[in-house]
Amino acid sequence: MPSRAAAPNVLVRKVGVIGTGAMGGGVIKSLVRAGVEAYARDIRPEAQNAAVKDGATGCATPAEMARQVDAVILLVVDAEQIDDVLFGADGAAEVLAPGAIVVASSTVDPSFPASLVPRLADRGIALLDAPVSGGPAKAAAGTMTMMVSGDGAALARIRGILERITGKLFALGPRAGDASTFKIVNNLLAGVNLAAAADAMAIAIRAGLDPRRVAEVINASSGGSWMFADRMPRALDHDYDPPHAAARILSKDVGIAAALAGRMGVDSAFARAAVAAYADALAAGYGEDDDAVLVKRALEKAVGGKRQ
Amino acid sequence: MPSRAAAPNVLVRKVGVIGTGAMGGGVIKSLVRAGVEAYARDIRPEAQNAAVKDGATGCATPAEMARQVDAVILLVVDAEQIDDVLFGADGAAEVLAPGAIVVASSTVDPSFPASLVPRLADRGIALLDAPVSGGPAKAAAGTMTMMVSGDGAALARIRGILERITGKLFALGPRAGDASTFKIVNNLLAGVNLAAAADAMAIAIRAGLDPRRVAEVINASSGGSWMFADRMPRALDHDYDPPHAAARILSKDVGIAAALAGRMGVDSAFARAAVAAYADALAAGYGEDDDAVLVKRALEKAVGGKRQ
Repeated sequence: MPSRAAAPNVLVRKVGVIGTGAMGGGVIKSLVRAGVEAYARDIRPEAQNAAVKDGATGCATPAEMARQVDAVILLVVDAEQIDDVLFGADGAAEVLAPGAIVVASSTVDPSFPASLVPRLADRGIALLDAPVSGGPAKAAAGTMTMMVSGDGAALARIRGILERITGKLFALGPRAGDASTFKIVNNLLAGVNLAAAADAMAIAIRAGLDPRRVAEVINASSGGSWMFADRMPRALDHDYDPPHAAARILSKDVGIAAALAGRMGVDSAFARAAVAAYADALAAGYGEDDDAVLVKRALEKAVGGKRQ
Repeated sequence: MPSRAAAPNVLVRKVGVIGTGAMGGGVIKSLVRAGVEAYARDIRPEAQNAAVKDGATGCATPAEMARQVDAVILLVVDAEQIDDVLFGADGAAEVLAPGAIVVASSTVDPSFPASLVPRLADRGIALLDAPVSGGPAKAAAGTMTMMVSGDGAALARIRGILERITGKLFALGPRAGDASTFKIVNNLLAGVNLAAAADAMAIAIRAGLDPRRVAEVINASSGGSWMFADRMPRALDHDYDPPHAAARILSKDVGIAAALAGRMGVDSAFARAAVAAYADALAAGYGEDDDAVLVKRALEKAVGGKRQ
């Protein structure tokens, strides 16, 4: 017999998404495809209208959505927006029924999801800390990765739905914040591996090597990384706009990672170098370009040296 | 019809290896297995004796080897040792016959192989700049990777043998030095990706995450890298001694990379951070440990923070 904690005492059937941009819009598509009754809210009418066109019911406010759903997936930009859609004017938290589940999927500082738990628990609402990765295409195809931690009973109730809108679901324990720590630590390495790859490619190009051959050799060697393999083709094609992943996103994430490193007492020169590299790219006006633009930027910055 | 440059005007049949330690000893095994008449020289009697036991003919000096072979593969430690075994007392260069080939496979600053070309050409000797990677086990199995640039006619003559002692041979053009640049740029990323992974794992562990779960998530996500996947199992098992790859090796390589970056006008904070991270590990006494020890070192250095 299933344990009491795992027993679905409230069936999750109606699911809302707040923030139906690139990732959230993809999640709407996956929910509708999975036969889940989906609700959509975005402050940008065009984003919400696209979700409605894909089969979701549009909602005028988070509160209006909260009256109708069993769970809300948050895919807004940052912690400030999460706070606003839950606790601001016409926010969801005051209206959600006891037993409702908030799935916080924006990438945020790990201390934030933990701080939400007691505020929502006061109203009988469970929180899942559930950052996602994989990009808009995988979100729409239902193959994105989700890292989830927090209330185990809530996860058991909604897990069937989450598994239908993800390709890989990592269940990472009972503490809200842990899943976000996994995500931030991963994104720190994604950020470092890309920015260092940009420097390496700039060195190679200035030394007179064929950049496509460099990519081929490194992808087959010990210097390879997921980010090198994924981003370098776009960098070599100068394919920065529209972005697959805008440079400002990793800029935000490595900033969160550097702050976390500081709190954990890890003095990481790599985290600092990453913060500086993305800040430089943003200062150069590349924030809305694909983050592969770091290769272009590393070459622009190279000066004073001589080609071999 | 084959072009004249590619036609083997001197057949390469007898091949010597100078430096028959971990990598060179493996190359001896692969040469013997491939039916090539192999000669061995190492200043450490135990290294040379092991090569003789594996089927090579031992040589008392590089000059004695040079009298007997068509090509010499150099797998000594660094540029200084290459200079010594070629041009020092009882060196090979004075004795090698015109038409002989020197295959320089140590990892060195790319400016060094280029500087050897005219010195050897004076005696009618061809140079191949041919760094290798993959470690001792792959060297012994004949599956290591070789990156080779330099004299095209010489490569054509020896390529059949090189292909029998490597799993992957990247032919990277006519300029000696280019293959070393490929290798150093690759190793810069290997060095950065590992040292940054060490910081990231230290952050995660101090935040209370299960390190094996962190490795599992990152290996399946955008923060993954060849070095993370290869080294983290050893780090989590505290398997540092004997080393698969001693920390001093990447320390040397990132130093060469940082110097190259400077000459190419690329101001890389990641290269500097890598130089500092490996120098710190060596200063802490870990130079002869497996480079996975950087994870242990990152945790030792973490201070003053609080666990979440």
